[in-house]
Order: sequence, then C-alpha cells, then structure tokens
Amino acid sequence: MLDGDTADLLRVKRGFDLDAVDPGSTPGFSGDKTDGQAQLDAGTAELAELQERLFAASTGGAADSVLLVLQGMDTAGKGGIVRHVVGAVDPQGVALTAFKAPTAAELRHSFLWRVRRELPAAGLIGVFDRSHYEDVLVHRVRKLSPLEVIGQRYDQINTFEQKVAAAGTRIVKVMLHISADEQETRLAERLERPDKYWKYRPRDLDDRALWPAFQRAYQIALDRTSTELAPWYVVPADRKWYARLAVQHLLLETLRGIDPQWPAADFDVEQEQKRLAGL
Amino acid sequence: MLDGDTADLLRVKRGFDLDAVDPGSTPGFSGDKTDGQAQLDAGTAELAELQERLFAASTGGAADSVLLVLQGMDTAGKGGIVRHVVGAVDPQGVALTAFKAPTAAELRHSFLWRVRRELPAAGLIGVFDRSHYEDVLVHRVRKLSPLEVIGQRYDQINTFEQKVAAAGTRIVKVMLHISADEQETRLAERLERPDKYWKYRPRDLDDRALWPAFQRAYQIALDRTSTELAPWYVVPADRKWYARLAVQHLLLETLRGIDPQWPAADFDVEQEQKRLAGL
Repeated sequence: MLDGDTADLLRVKRGFDLDAVDPGSTPGFSGDKTDGQAQLDAGTAELAELQERLFAASTGGAADSVLLVLQGMDTAGKGGIVRHVVGAVDPQGVALTAFKAPTAAELRHSFLWRVRRELPAAGLIGVFDRSHYEDVLVHRVRKLSPLEVIGQRYDQINTFEQKVAAAGTRIVKVMLHISADEQETRLAERLERPDKYWKYRPRDLDDRALWPAFQRAYQIALDRTSTELAPWYVVPADRKWYARLAVQHLLLETLRGIDPQWPAADFDVEQEQKRLAGL
Repeated sequence: MLDGDTADLLRVKRGFDLDAVDPGSTPGFSGDKTDGQAQLDAGTAELAELQERLFAASTGGAADSVLLVLQGMDTAGKGGIVRHVVGAVDPQGVALTAFKAPTAAELRHSFLWRVRRELPAAGLIGVFDRSHYEDVLVHRVRKLSPLEVIGQRYDQINTFEQKVAAAGTRIVKVMLHISADEQETRLAERLERPDKYWKYRPRDLDDRALWPAFQRAYQIALDRTSTELAPWYVVPADRKWYARLAVQHLLLETLRGIDPQWPAADFDVEQEQKRLAGL
C-alpha cells in the first residue's frame, strides 16, 4: 500500500530541492512493480466511482471540479498517465487538453488566455498535458521571452490559479521527474522501433542538450508557484508503474477531499413512479 | 464469435423496417452474456492498437479519422457505449461531444454549424452522443421546425456527410434500439436508486409518451440518410452486452478497413541515434 502521507512526501514545500529527488525512488511505497500494478488496478474502481459522483453532484449544482496539470521532460510519461490513470474513468467525465506551441491567434493574447478557455467545467476532471508552465519553462531556457516578462509570469500564474481554485477547482500540479539516463533509454527505444518513430522528434534532442537549464527552470517554477491552493507534486518517474500509482493516489486524495455526494432528486419521485406506471 | 457479416446484418438498406427489428435479439452472435462480455474484452487490445495506429498515421500526414454517431431513445445505452467501448482506448485519441439542446448562439446558425465544429481531426475517433439527427427526430416529433424545413434537412445532411467522408472521415451511425418495456425497466431503476436520480429527468417521460412518433421519425431518418459513405446501423440494445459488442465490432471493422500504418521516420534514424549517443 501507498502510505497515507505520500501526497505530503511528494508536495513541494519551502526549501524544496529538485536535485535531491531520486527519479528512481518510490516515496511512500515499499512494494515492487507487481505490487504497484496490482494497487493501481485496485484503485481504479474507487476513482471511477468518485469521478461519477463528482459529475453527478454538478448536475445538482455543485461547483467542484479537478484540474490535473502534467509537466515533465520529453518521455517523462505524461501520455502514459493520461492513458493508464485518467483512461480508467468514464471519458464523459474528463476534459483533456494537450497544449502545443501556441498558434498565431493564441500569441495575440496573454499566455493565460488559451489556458482559461480549457478550464474544466463543474463536475469534470480536467487534464492539461503541458500547460501555462511552458511559458516559464521553455521560455526561460530558450529565451523566448525577456527575463523580466518571465519574472512577472510567476505572480500572474499564482493570481490566476487562486481565482480558479476559489471558483471550485482543485488544482493538482505534477512534475514527472525522470533522470537523464532514463530519458536516453526511452529515446533510444523510440529510435529502435519503427512503431515508435512517430513519437520521436529531432527537437527532443535539442531539449535534451539543455537538460541542466531545464532542471533549473523547473526548480524556479516549483519554488515560486507551489501554493497551498495549487501545490506542485514532484513524482519520481523513472519507474512508470510508480508514477502512475502516485498520480492515481493524488487524484484519489483530491476527490476524497471533495467527497462529492449524489444529488437529491429535484422532482417528486413517487409522482414520477406513478406517471411511469401509467405510460 | 460475432459472425463476420454482422455489420451487414445491422446495416440499414433499402426497404428496412424498424418495427421488424427485435430489440432483444443478438444478430450475428449465438453466445450468451458471458460469452459476449469475454469477446468484448478480447477485442479491446486490437481496438486500442488500431486507434494508436490511426493516430500515429495522422502524424505522418494521413487524413483518416472515424466518426461514431450515437442515437437512441433515453436509456438506450449511449453513455454505456462511450464508457465501455470507446473508454477502452487512449483518451488522447478520442474527441467526444455530447450535444444538448442548442444554445442561443448555436440557434443563430444552421443546424449543422455546431456539428461541423466538432468533427474529428485526422487521426482521431470522434464520438457524437446525439447529433444533427436531433434536428430531424425531436424536431419532427415535437414540431420544433416546420415539416417543410425538416424535409430539406435530410438532403442537407446527406450532402454534408458526403463532404465529411470525402475529406477522410469514416462515418458510422448507430441507432441503439430498445423496446418500450426495457425502457420502462431502466427508468424505473433510476427512480428506485438514489444514486441514479441524477440521470432521470421528468422530460424523459414526456418523450416516452410520444414513443410511436419517435419510432416513425427514426424510420424516416433511417430511410433517407443511410448512404453508402455514411450508413446507419440499427443495433438491438435491450441487452447492453450485445450492443457494446456490436458497436465495438463496427469500430473494429471500420479501422481494419482503414488499415492505418505506422508512419515512416521523417528524420535520419541512424544520425539521430548517433546524436543521442553523443549527448
């Protein structure tokens, strides 16, 4: 079993040091891969029920929703989280957005504009595969914006996320943390298997060459934007099974915290039963 | 096993008679519920791989996509198809749209306007939970539009769907066909279980009271819009397990027909391997 305080172990707090997190570790979990996969399967039913309750509650007027933000270096496993963790719940309850390089239209707006449009409605679990954090990560590393502008974005993000949280959205931000060695293995696999070529872009290697700069950019972003209402969790991700189990745990904890309830009938049950019997 | 010609058995052809389809039947399948569920599970891996190939092929420039249109009376099981059939593939490859009563903004446009905006991009499996067919079904039954306008819509739909198909989208239209008795059972269950109240709307009974008119509206729509490039399939749906198996089969057949291929590398594999080794 994952320890009950796993979320706390993974949460980014004051003084957090990214370099000190071992990407191969499994905080809060003492089992092996087989145990981990079994626990992931075991958590699926509860996650699916909590998602259905969240959705049902919104039909009764509850404003709660969840937003899972996924960040990480290429091959860190964002897609696997979507497929194996989020994919276990009813697709009707999920709003998934993969953010690519912004379009010309998007660039004419504030960097938060396109993100705001994709926030989950009440009752939904929103998932961002990349996010507004690209505007302080890749922008810092590749100097796509002046440092002064980037410096202001952290505060803009915090203000934005506080408003989103106040409107009823629980924000869970996850950095999937892999090692450079593990990334090499995963990229090499994509270059060895013709059924994986399509996942590979030469640009991935350009980013890899900037590894230390990306790690620094993550450290700064984690320092400046992990807040009480929108915390960051750094999830060691060299072991895919652990990362999936940990993110499932974070979603379960978040949904348990909401504790969504089946809404009461907004009609007269007995009268409707009589009408049905008469038809 | 589902017979190889099941799709043909379910397809709406000239002279089709909706009244002659037994909603409790299982065309092309001689097994029972246990067999059916086992076969549904067995088909999941192939469906997931074909979906991934479809998506991958689009990154190499292929224009193919799939559009599954789901229609049926309330409780017919559209949500169950989404959850148990579509839900088995990677959510990143699915574009799901549930069409509700049109908004004021949507009403200012042609009835196809909001549908066009939700067509699946290349590589995706689009799913419509209700669709532009509401504009010839409920509109006919409830007289929401003049008969003359509705009469023109069938041709407009055919023209529209031919264009969509020509652009690379395989269209699969499914009517989930339940009996009035089975609907009564399912509505009664929603009225008996507090965790199901949220799925019930008194309006469902108003529609139920118009059952024969809805069946006639379906018959007309099926007659006029089942075309070679956008065929209708009427799937008996009193047995949920059969309906799910049949729709999975239709998706499998459609994807096998596309036969999507992993795209070739658009980079020099050996050179990238060398670059990776040097980083």
